[in-house]
Amino acid sequence: MSYTAPTKDLLFACLELADLEGIQQLPGYEEVNQELVEAILEEAGKFGSEVLAPINHSGDIQGARLVDGQAVTADGWKEAYKQFIESGWNGLPFDPEVGGQGLPWVISTAVNEIWHASNMSFALCPLLTQGAIEAVLAHGSEEQKETYLAKLVSGEWTGTMNLTEPQAGSDLAAVRAKAKPNGDHYLISGQKIFITYGDHDMTENIIHLVLARLPDAPEGVKGISLFIVPKYLQDDSGKWTIRNDVKTLKLEHKLGIHASPTAVLGYGDDDSAVGYLIGGEHQGLMCMFTMMNVARHSVGVQGYALADRAYQQAVEYASNRTQGAAIDDPKGGRVNIIDHPDVQRLLWTQKCRNEALRALAMVSSSCMDKSERHTDESTRNAANDMVEILTPIVKGYSTELGLENVSLALQIHGGMGFMEETGAAQHYRDQRITPIYEGTTGIQALDLAGRKLLRDGGQLAQRVIGYIKQDVQTLEGLEEPMQRALTDGLDQLNHVVEVLAAQPAENMRQIAAVSEPYLRLWGIVTCGWQMAKSASRAKSRIAAGDTDPFFATKVRTAEFYFSSEMPQMHTMLDRINSSGDLIAATNIDDFKVA
Amino acid sequence: MSYTAPTKDLLFACLELADLEGIQQLPGYEEVNQELVEAILEEAGKFGSEVLAPINHSGDIQGARLVDGQAVTADGWKEAYKQFIESGWNGLPFDPEVGGQGLPWVISTAVNEIWHASNMSFALCPLLTQGAIEAVLAHGSEEQKETYLAKLVSGEWTGTMNLTEPQAGSDLAAVRAKAKPNGDHYLISGQKIFITYGDHDMTENIIHLVLARLPDAPEGVKGISLFIVPKYLQDDSGKWTIRNDVKTLKLEHKLGIHASPTAVLGYGDDDSAVGYLIGGEHQGLMCMFTMMNVARHSVGVQGYALADRAYQQAVEYASNRTQGAAIDDPKGGRVNIIDHPDVQRLLWTQKCRNEALRALAMVSSSCMDKSERHTDESTRNAANDMVEILTPIVKGYSTELGLENVSLALQIHGGMGFMEETGAAQHYRDQRITPIYEGTTGIQALDLAGRKLLRDGGQLAQRVIGYIKQDVQTLEGLEEPMQRALTDGLDQLNHVVEVLAAQPAENMRQIAAVSEPYLRLWGIVTCGWQMAKSASRAKSRIAAGDTDPFFATKVRTAEFYFSSEMPQMHTMLDRINSSGDLIAATNIDDFKVA
Repeated sequence: MSYTAPTKDLLFACLELADLEGIQQLPGYEEVNQELVEAILEEAGKFGSEVLAPINHSGDIQGARLVDGQAVTADGWKEAYKQFIESGWNGLPFDPEVGGQGLPWVISTAVNEIWHASNMSFALCPLLTQGAIEAVLAHGSEEQKETYLAKLVSGEWTGTMNLTEPQAGSDLAAVRAKAKPNGDHYLISGQKIFITYGDHDMTENIIHLVLARLPDAPEGVKGISLFIVPKYLQDDSGKWTIRNDVKTLKLEHKLGIHASPTAVLGYGDDDSAVGYLIGGEHQGLMCMFTMMNVARHSVGVQGYALADRAYQQAVEYASNRTQGAAIDDPKGGRVNIIDHPDVQRLLWTQKCRNEALRALAMVSSSCMDKSERHTDESTRNAANDMVEILTPIVKGYSTELGLENVSLALQIHGGMGFMEETGAAQHYRDQRITPIYEGTTGIQALDLAGRKLLRDGGQLAQRVIGYIKQDVQTLEGLEEPMQRALTDGLDQLNHVVEVLAAQPAENMRQIAAVSEPYLRLWGIVTCGWQMAKSASRAKSRIAAGDTDPFFATKVRTAEFYFSSEMPQMHTMLDRINSSGDLIAATNIDDFKVA
Repeated sequence: MSYTAPTKDLLFACLELADLEGIQQLPGYEEVNQELVEAILEEAGKFGSEVLAPINHSGDIQGARLVDGQAVTADGWKEAYKQFIESGWNGLPFDPEVGGQGLPWVISTAVNEIWHASNMSFALCPLLTQGAIEAVLAHGSEEQKETYLAKLVSGEWTGTMNLTEPQAGSDLAAVRAKAKPNGDHYLISGQKIFITYGDHDMTENIIHLVLARLPDAPEGVKGISLFIVPKYLQDDSGKWTIRNDVKTLKLEHKLGIHASPTAVLGYGDDDSAVGYLIGGEHQGLMCMFTMMNVARHSVGVQGYALADRAYQQAVEYASNRTQGAAIDDPKGGRVNIIDHPDVQRLLWTQKCRNEALRALAMVSSSCMDKSERHTDESTRNAANDMVEILTPIVKGYSTELGLENVSLALQIHGGMGFMEETGAAQHYRDQRITPIYEGTTGIQALDLAGRKLLRDGGQLAQRVIGYIKQDVQTLEGLEEPMQRALTDGLDQLNHVVEVLAAQPAENMRQIAAVSEPYLRLWGIVTCGWQMAKSASRAKSRIAAGDTDPFFATKVRTAEFYFSSEMPQMHTMLDRINSSGDLIAATNIDDFKVA
């Protein structure tokens, strides 16, 4: 169950798709050149393969446990984490002035893929810490930054996001946890569930970011505030030795990511859970979105990262499993199953999706960088438009396809795939959470079809379609069928945007009913854009004399995408056109067992 | 985690789709009328809900274990099995003269759905016994029938299928187990893996049907023979007390169906594994197909059975989980998530697929009955044509959609779906084996595109399309869009058959490469046929004054199928048309990690 980082494809995505050259021109990123990226990917690949991947399966078997109220991680976890932070990986995208490496999101995305592919359960810890850092950076007071940032960025402490309560999952308006003013701090009370790395034994402190309500808070999402609640508080000597009133009540028994401790946390059982307000009263939702947007992007990365790991294992298995004669030589000798066309279809399907999704996420993160740092306002705005649209697609579409892909990878193993020992089953179990946490696919689809479509009558969506069309026009050497399918896809998408945006307000149910195929349509077309662009760039490299077979394979991968994935566009269009009214007319008794 | 058998829908399928009236006219089935069917479904539903469903989740948690070389089933298993056979359920489809209930396959299929939905791990035991009974019935000598049939039919003993060896999964030509003549019997040696209920403690004997090679056997599939190898042999007094030389070496650690013991069996470690040849020397493959065809159909039933159980749980969860306001009333109170249109889409999707797949399997089993018993030869032949084509579709398409459906059911639970306690995760794990065992989806697709298409230049496939077209012409009150989509689907399918059948022999790789979308195209269109027919029949019932809302719901379900599932046809057509050459040109280095 080894893992090899796809460094060449990541570099290709950086250089040819995600505009590394443009990133290098952003203030602060002048040093980010090809050589640096290659060196980082090389090192990250080594760390992933040699340190994280080897403890992925053992971690699944052993899992995290709760021992005397303290979460204990699986064997090797503490040591790997120590190495991880000592190598400086934790602070990759953050400013050097807070101890980070000052690298752009696009590099961080490439490296995160390697962590999640190597060991998703492990990589969730820094993923959550990153969210906490973002929140403190964006909303913390100077004192809070001073107190927490350096330790979170270095990884000496980890961070968590405490949103969910038993009655408040997707619906944050239902949050009930309370915060009572008490001098310079607040006393937090309530229970939070599904807290990833809510407790563990890898660091001396954990910084919880907790949504709760002040006594005078308005109802709904406008009445939630965010609080910093450290596991350990500072004593008089300035050391963090005083146990805060946060109890780990339970670790969940989950389908997958067994080694990632998912905690139920009880705040204020003894009325003494000290918390510090961050970002102003009743501003919790905004702060939460700061954490959430980056986290959503990162979960999208998990989707194809894990799928790529699973794909690699399927290729390995298919290359060594001898079974049956070749279909066109039934009397010949036995062949490895990688020679069977139906197995090749499964592999091509996974490969083209993973590479398309990777490209899309890399482009999205490149836009994150530009939206934050570009010196030209209109470029910043355009990049921000892209991020707004691409984030729910990267989260929603990558994780849904990732789920299908790990299942295809398992299928290639035949009966062995159903045995836990091969590891294919672990990927199938682990991946199942990705379309759920940080907002289900349904939530992503409503974000894309609601806030990001209806709010401005489709203008944002149409601007983005416009940018993509412009980009497509610059592509050289596109074959005619690919060109035609892509143009058709963009036109159809534009038409759907127009039609949906023109719906009267009373048709909200119809729109919500088709939001999922709408999100998929975006996914199919934007992945098509990236695959067409990949083919064009690869052809240019071949034309320029580069003989690396990587480029010819890339062209074939894009062709397979257009022959097999792009056609799903028509299914989504039909669903969007014809199923909304039917669903809106649902009588819930229709679902009764008959 | 309760389960309610969908008795009304099963009865509808029997009466309106699977031609119960026609079945009643077959010799021996004169008693099989609506009242009888209703009574059987009622009783089976009760047994499933009250006896089998309650031990499904506990069985998953506890699992089967190997204790001192003997497989031990989970708590409650022995008692449930005793009740099961005492109620006479085990011999449902077999002749009364061997102790069965003498009921047609179509009833058996309906009842099997209930068992698999209630408790798939449990129901696998009778599924395998049924295969063994079929083999003995079709190929056993009179003495063998005398010896084994009654006990297998009653369920006093169970049966197994021993095909797979470590190097011989889909590829039975690679079977290496040996059989050495030794007086009136043979001595078997070799190892068999993945043996479902290969060992257990619910009955006093287990009858293994084992593929092995005689000393003079030709190579490949033409050299395998089938042997009866009882766990216990008869002593001089005629009692079955002598332990045969079959050892349970291991129970597999699997992703799902934990309560179903999957054994590695070692034959002849002490050179004394006694086996009896069944069906003639080197006739093993044919005998195996006898077992396999029924088993394939049954696994297809598992696909939608389990999906229906998961769907029921999702409906239950969505009906009680309050989260968010209604999309068209954001300031109103919180609603149950079953009111959200995106959740409704997921439920409709599951519902329409499950009902379509159920209908198709019921029709297929009705054809099994007619092919066996109809007095008119041409009707028998036509029914047999249908079975030939529908079996790989029922197996392949039901299990693939079943897999997607249990995942959608889990998704509706949000974060709770990932927690093992809700049971949604168990269905997701259990279902994963169905597209693998009894021939993977790839194998089913090759059966449909190879043996059942190319062998006779597409004649069988075109005859079946013809029967369906004829049937469609008899449907009353079909709405025009449904009529048009169905006719178009059948025409396109017919065209694909022509095109594929006309391919030159050297294009075998291209055909194999598109066999999976070819199977799916068949699945989509034949399910469309069943849903259109369901809508037509339901409308007739409404027109006749039946006010049961079941019928209006059925019409809406069919409409949803045509708006959401039928459009996938175009994707499959595109894949069939354009991806075969690409895949056939694969260079396996394309799949290397770059």
